[in-house]
Amino acid sequence: MTKPTARERLAQAAFALFDERGYEQTTVDDITERAGLGRATFFRHYRSKEDVIFPDHDLLLSQVAGRLRSSSHATALAAVSDAVRLVLLHYLDEGELARRRYALTSTVPALRDREIVSVARYQRLFREFITAWMADRGQSAALQAELMAAAVVSAHNHVLRRWLRGQSPDPAGEVDAAMRQVIALFTPPAADPGTAGATVVAFRTSQPLEDLLPAIQRALGENSQVTRPTA
Amino acid sequence: MTKPTARERLAQAAFALFDERGYEQTTVDDITERAGLGRATFFRHYRSKEDVIFPDHDLLLSQVAGRLRSSSHATALAAVSDAVRLVLLHYLDEGELARRRYALTSTVPALRDREIVSVARYQRLFREFITAWMADRGQSAALQAELMAAAVVSAHNHVLRRWLRGQSPDPAGEVDAAMRQVIALFTPPAADPGTAGATVVAFRTSQPLEDLLPAIQRALGENSQVTRPTA
Repeated sequence: MTKPTARERLAQAAFALFDERGYEQTTVDDITERAGLGRATFFRHYRSKEDVIFPDHDLLLSQVAGRLRSSSHATALAAVSDAVRLVLLHYLDEGELARRRYALTSTVPALRDREIVSVARYQRLFREFITAWMADRGQSAALQAELMAAAVVSAHNHVLRRWLRGQSPDPAGEVDAAMRQVIALFTPPAADPGTAGATVVAFRTSQPLEDLLPAIQRALGENSQVTRPTA
Repeated sequence: MTKPTARERLAQAAFALFDERGYEQTTVDDITERAGLGRATFFRHYRSKEDVIFPDHDLLLSQVAGRLRSSSHATALAAVSDAVRLVLLHYLDEGELARRRYALTSTVPALRDREIVSVARYQRLFREFITAWMADRGQSAALQAELMAAAVVSAHNHVLRRWLRGQSPDPAGEVDAAMRQVIALFTPPAADPGTAGATVVAFRTSQPLEDLLPAIQRALGENSQVTRPTA
């Protein structure tokens, strides 16, 4: 166990008091008193009581932006899907603290609103990154960038929310699966690569297929399978 | 021109004052004085000065929910894409008022945050509707509902923002195109309907294709075409 920093001690004191007395009833003075630290220390780390609740989004956003800048992924969407994992991992690292925050934001509307506003900042960063990446500056490309950013953020939040509610035993694995679902959504289907060793022959004929099958079967020999396609 | 309602007069007075003095510097008393109405009238229509800025989202949301309930669309996504047009049309009806609000929300962070929070309410309504519609309650279906709701809302906002910035001469047409783009995203490509009269035979064989082609050609007769597929 490393010794908690002043920032962490303040957060721990705040959450303990929010649990005991309720969020509205807790003041900054209550928090500093419980933490055994001064008001000046509090305001060096947090701008307000509200601030204590939330992760340091400025820091996280700058880490996400750094990850995007140095990305070697082949597509903007893959880069963004990778970068958003940083955010999820941050919450997972927080552990119980993240769950206590979730309990608070679920019951205090002002905190829930602030959470929603933070989410929009990530979505905007992603949208800007994807737009800058795209060579096409057309109207449907701009919309595509918007849709991609929204999809990545929603998928992340979906997994995060499940974990916060105790519904996801493997959030890191789940976020990977969710990002694959997002990437698949925006990936036009490739031409069917075919099964190894299979050959497809297409032909046009007026003869009923049934009449042809025995001849084809003979032509192909014993190792072949001839199958009537299902509609 | 119909005579403006008290609600509209208050909004007009408020926006005029925000333009002249700035948002922060305008009080509710300033607004009621300019509108020639009393404070009681103001608070019958609006809870706060902030409230004057925004559309009546409670009303709009209940109209959207009503439209969804009575929808005869074949898929949840089509129903939601249709319902979100109500919101766009509301802004278009507002005309200049919507643009003045946009100018304000772009410069006053508290108003911009409140706008973001409103958007999340629509997204949640859509997500709940799509989830209720889906028979599949699995994890990837839940994520799919989330992604669909996010896509519809982002596409709407994309078009709305363009119109508010004076970049979209035909927002109603654009939102239809955007919704088609969203629906296409979530529509798995149909099995190739094939060319009329064509048949596909797939088989597995160790014989070289070249050895088989003459036999197949004979089996099919003169009206057939046998083509080696290109990789």
